[in-house]
Amino acid sequence: MDMIRIFCPATVSNLSCGYDVLGLALEQVGEEMIIRKASDDQLTIRQTEGPEIPLDPAKNVAGVAARSLLDHLGIKEGFEIEIAKRIKPGSGIGSSAASASGAVWGINQLLGAPLSTMELLPHAMTGEAIASNAWHADNVAPCLLGGFVLIRSYDPLDVIQLSFPNDLALTIIHPHIEIKTAEARTLIGDKILLKNAVAQWGNLGGLIAGLASGDHDLISRSLVDHLAEPKRKHLIPGYDEMKSVALAAGALGFGISGSGPSVFALCKGMKKAEEVGEKLAASFSPLNIAFDLHCSRIHTEGIRIIP
Amino acid sequence: MDMIRIFCPATVSNLSCGYDVLGLALEQVGEEMIIRKASDDQLTIRQTEGPEIPLDPAKNVAGVAARSLLDHLGIKEGFEIEIAKRIKPGSGIGSSAASASGAVWGINQLLGAPLSTMELLPHAMTGEAIASNAWHADNVAPCLLGGFVLIRSYDPLDVIQLSFPNDLALTIIHPHIEIKTAEARTLIGDKILLKNAVAQWGNLGGLIAGLASGDHDLISRSLVDHLAEPKRKHLIPGYDEMKSVALAAGALGFGISGSGPSVFALCKGMKKAEEVGEKLAASFSPLNIAFDLHCSRIHTEGIRIIP
Repeated sequence: MDMIRIFCPATVSNLSCGYDVLGLALEQVGEEMIIRKASDDQLTIRQTEGPEIPLDPAKNVAGVAARSLLDHLGIKEGFEIEIAKRIKPGSGIGSSAASASGAVWGINQLLGAPLSTMELLPHAMTGEAIASNAWHADNVAPCLLGGFVLIRSYDPLDVIQLSFPNDLALTIIHPHIEIKTAEARTLIGDKILLKNAVAQWGNLGGLIAGLASGDHDLISRSLVDHLAEPKRKHLIPGYDEMKSVALAAGALGFGISGSGPSVFALCKGMKKAEEVGEKLAASFSPLNIAFDLHCSRIHTEGIRIIP
Repeated sequence: MDMIRIFCPATVSNLSCGYDVLGLALEQVGEEMIIRKASDDQLTIRQTEGPEIPLDPAKNVAGVAARSLLDHLGIKEGFEIEIAKRIKPGSGIGSSAASASGAVWGINQLLGAPLSTMELLPHAMTGEAIASNAWHADNVAPCLLGGFVLIRSYDPLDVIQLSFPNDLALTIIHPHIEIKTAEARTLIGDKILLKNAVAQWGNLGGLIAGLASGDHDLISRSLVDHLAEPKRKHLIPGYDEMKSVALAAGALGFGISGSGPSVFALCKGMKKAEEVGEKLAASFSPLNIAFDLHCSRIHTEGIRIIP
């Protein structure tokens, strides 16, 4: 196999109560990449669609991730990475993570899969880190592994695939405004109130228990953010109004996807997600800010080969 | 029914990664109470065994809990509460919680159970608060409900009964030294480092996922305390040595029970708990501090009527 064409899912991280530890993969939203073995030993990045990204492999998340993997394996071969950039950079639904993960996953496949998907994680994280200035796995892990994942520990890295009810679906609104991940992180600060931490881990525990037992009401009660939402929601125009609309329309929860500006509503069933999406779009439209709307199930597969 | 005799389980709270939100009930350790309807409208506390406790109902956790319940129900009847104090006060395995919970559970039974067990919680918490100076449910909730519980939220109070593998057992060492709960709490401080909070809730998530799926290895990896253990372990002589001994002997995890001084080892199976208990006793004995040793399964029932 000299060429592979793959789908790399967009991802939603944090999920209200799971700052830096929770993420899930989307089924209907993601980007496509084609990776080819090169005749020389160079890494080359090509882009076929979407907003312009750096093509210098040392400045491109896919290039940096690929280089990390190849150096780790001690492999001198070259690869051409062709990216159809369908997730807008800076959207908060894992654009960098999709490219970084796709590069290492695809190259690993072309090399005969010397590493497990779990072993690819640190290389994808290395790539993503140049975009976010942070060493985090809550987008690359669900992108690579699929499903709903928990980063139990960063040192050592320990990623758990969670059980969850198969009827969960999400609506995403991506307002076309810019929030830098690195700046959004500084809003949180280095210390938090113990009472907020206790409230946050109570909800995280409730969410994971609810996901495991298929208790949608518990999932809903647990989707509360005492940490990032109060500090970051003012960066997203119309946030409070959208949240009210989503919850009134029956969403299980509503929050910021990653560090924003995308927001998500978690719903029981695609029909409900689409209904919530229509109402969110109607709520957001009067602000005259361009936006994308996505509705998607949770993708159980992670990155996959496409024809 | 004019009299009820009950067993009120001892409880282990915090459980390394679940500060203020996790607790479990013990099957083989607890205290007995007899509650009788009185001929007058007075609350009376009597003690038949164990270290001396205040008998003034306004200063006794059982009395305060009972008064809170009776005032809530608008009931003018009196009760005699007889306590066989088998859990030593200040042990860190829920002595106050057992008395407070037993009082409200027993009186509620004698009144024909006007309230659900869940509805009794705030009254038991009110009683326990006079001993700990804190409004917390991580001992009274498992005492009343049994099993392994999560306090998802304190406001509103939302207690979740977690799934867990039925082979879990605990060894408890209670060194006879005094640690005041209120003082132990001040050691933690009002603010914590975000990185420690993230590590803590990653582990809490892992523990709940591991309990739900019966993954003992994940349970073991998740029993890590980034919050209280580093600040409190120096209050407990021989702590580091006991922890090493317990883990080397195959315990899934080892930590401080509540705010101490009791410590717990969580094990797979009673046989392992007993084996770990022997090694812990051998490790602690040279310190020449009196101690109690308990081995117990997790009690699934909560408070129960005994003959």
